Amino acid sequence: MAGDEFALIERYFRGLTPARADVHTGIGDDAAVLDVPPGHELVVSTDTLVAGVHFPVSTPPADIGWKSLAVNLSDLAAMGAEPRWVTLALTLSGADDEFLGPFCRGFADCAAPQGVALVGGDLTRGPLSITVQIMGTVPAGMALLRSGARAGDAIWVTGELGGAALGLVMVQGRHGGAVDDDCVQRLNRPVPRVQAGLALRGQATACIDISDGLLTDLGHVLRASEVGARVELARLPLAPAVAALAVASQRWPLALGGGDDYELCFTAPAGADESVCAALKASGIGATCIGAVTAGSGAQWIGDDGRAVDFGPATGYQHF
Amino acid sequence: MAGDEFALIERYFRGLTPARADVHTGIGDDAAVLDVPPGHELVVSTDTLVAGVHFPVSTPPADIGWKSLAVNLSDLAAMGAEPRWVTLALTLSGADDEFLGPFCRGFADCAAPQGVALVGGDLTRGPLSITVQIMGTVPAGMALLRSGARAGDAIWVTGELGGAALGLVMVQGRHGGAVDDDCVQRLNRPVPRVQAGLALRGQATACIDISDGLLTDLGHVLRASEVGARVELARLPLAPAVAALAVASQRWPLALGGGDDYELCFTAPAGADESVCAALKASGIGATCIGAVTAGSGAQWIGDDGRAVDFGPATGYQHF
Repeated sequence: MAGDEFALIERYFRGLTPARADVHTGIGDDAAVLDVPPGHELVVSTDTLVAGVHFPVSTPPADIGWKSLAVNLSDLAAMGAEPRWVTLALTLSGADDEFLGPFCRGFADCAAPQGVALVGGDLTRGPLSITVQIMGTVPAGMALLRSGARAGDAIWVTGELGGAALGLVMVQGRHGGAVDDDCVQRLNRPVPRVQAGLALRGQATACIDISDGLLTDLGHVLRASEVGARVELARLPLAPAVAALAVASQRWPLALGGGDDYELCFTAPAGADESVCAALKASGIGATCIGAVTAGSGAQWIGDDGRAVDFGPATGYQHF
Repeated sequence: MAGDEFALIERYFRGLTPARADVHTGIGDDAAVLDVPPGHELVVSTDTLVAGVHFPVSTPPADIGWKSLAVNLSDLAAMGAEPRWVTLALTLSGADDEFLGPFCRGFADCAAPQGVALVGGDLTRGPLSITVQIMGTVPAGMALLRSGARAGDAIWVTGELGGAALGLVMVQGRHGGAVDDDCVQRLNRPVPRVQAGLALRGQATACIDISDGLLTDLGHVLRASEVGARVELARLPLAPAVAALAVASQRWPLALGGGDDYELCFTAPAGADESVCAALKASGIGATCIGAVTAGSGAQWIGDDGRAVDFGPATGYQHF
């Protein structure tokens, strides 16, 4: 417990992330001054994590630091944008070394491989809450939007679904079985699919990150694109611990509604499978085709018996 | 009390602020896509307001909305930047119409005259807290930094000091006299000096906004510029209610340390007074020369008797 805001910034935040040549003025003035390269558009997103709402209060501070940046990087990934800069508005009950030290290490561990520079922020006193704003760029006109899906397109998801949601059930002690480290890792240390997003520029017709669960997030793409979808449940790539659940009906709320997966759901023209897989292969991230875009509206979720399953409106994550 | 995050965004936030041609994709995708004009740099700042810390919980919601944007615009003003876009991360205990309606009106009232567009944000559940990130631009190389003051420069402040701090004392009931509407207005509806900042491009050698009080904020300029200062207390432009205080010694903690004034403190070459005043006149904002930059370090505050007054380290606003 020491120091005022300015001393804390010097101690914990200056030099925390990689230096970048496109940062003219970083931490320490009224605002940061940054260089957007010619021919590129600026891509901006912000997400807040509140203690006890977005993560259990028992979450290790290093994981909170990692995740607060990762969920924002995931939004840039969904746009096909290259992350460059980040600001951090951190509200803390006090200047607590035991929190700030590991929090900053987790934040830095997430920033380093992406080359993202912390260029400013605000440190305030109050109930624990973290708001990150991420900024990146795309070549003009190349951003992956939610609105580009066309009937006939294939629907894909990267990675595996439901592991983070099962991890949350486990750390909350609501799961009968043992705590699975892989699930907790998926919950606390999601890996944003930045390289996959970059690889999908010029390949995907629409893209979104799965933060609120596939049911809700695919729904956003369908509404923005004014199309429908037919998804085969048997093709959903489930996290191993989710696939291993003895009661099959427990899988879908986790995989479709649990949220916190931070995978990408994207659409691409039918017949482009080889091209999509080749582009993603270089990024080291796998993807699975789970269905097709249809004319009309809304998603049909097709079970093993070939009939549509109705999950109802309550499966997606509700913010309020 | 109604609706999920997406419904609230549609109801309260879409269309709240002016449309701009440089917004390719605004609210409603994973991120906003924005056009920075060629030859310009991006200028970015963020500030958080926490209920009960940065404003009394009794503050009218419309004033909270205004101020959450105004304090961020003030940071851009201090850089000489033209504000363009803003994101809003709003944490609320519930989807409360009585709060959201007036909050959004106050926010919009502050945004409209500056032409700032709300391009994204996040709505989360938790203790009331508002984080705004403001983005704007300057022609390359024209940003007003804290580091440019040189010995011999004149030191200026816009507007009047101490009114907001006295307003806070009044609304907290810690002031013996009547509540002065002018002071409460200065506290709750600060007018960011954006036009003054633009006018000072090419005029000021250094600039900062006075959010933590002149003592602290001038100190930042002096440290960043590696210079000292000599300021004459008699020349400080006090808000009328502060100047009218019967006990003269009560004035300085308010005018120098109270904070929340959101005026600009800037330096300009000696002898440039006419040029500075002419540039500011067009912006409609007055400024007062209060002293001079000196070689050395730290500020000397000179009283009526020509002797230095020592205010001690505790006069500036302490964040922790």
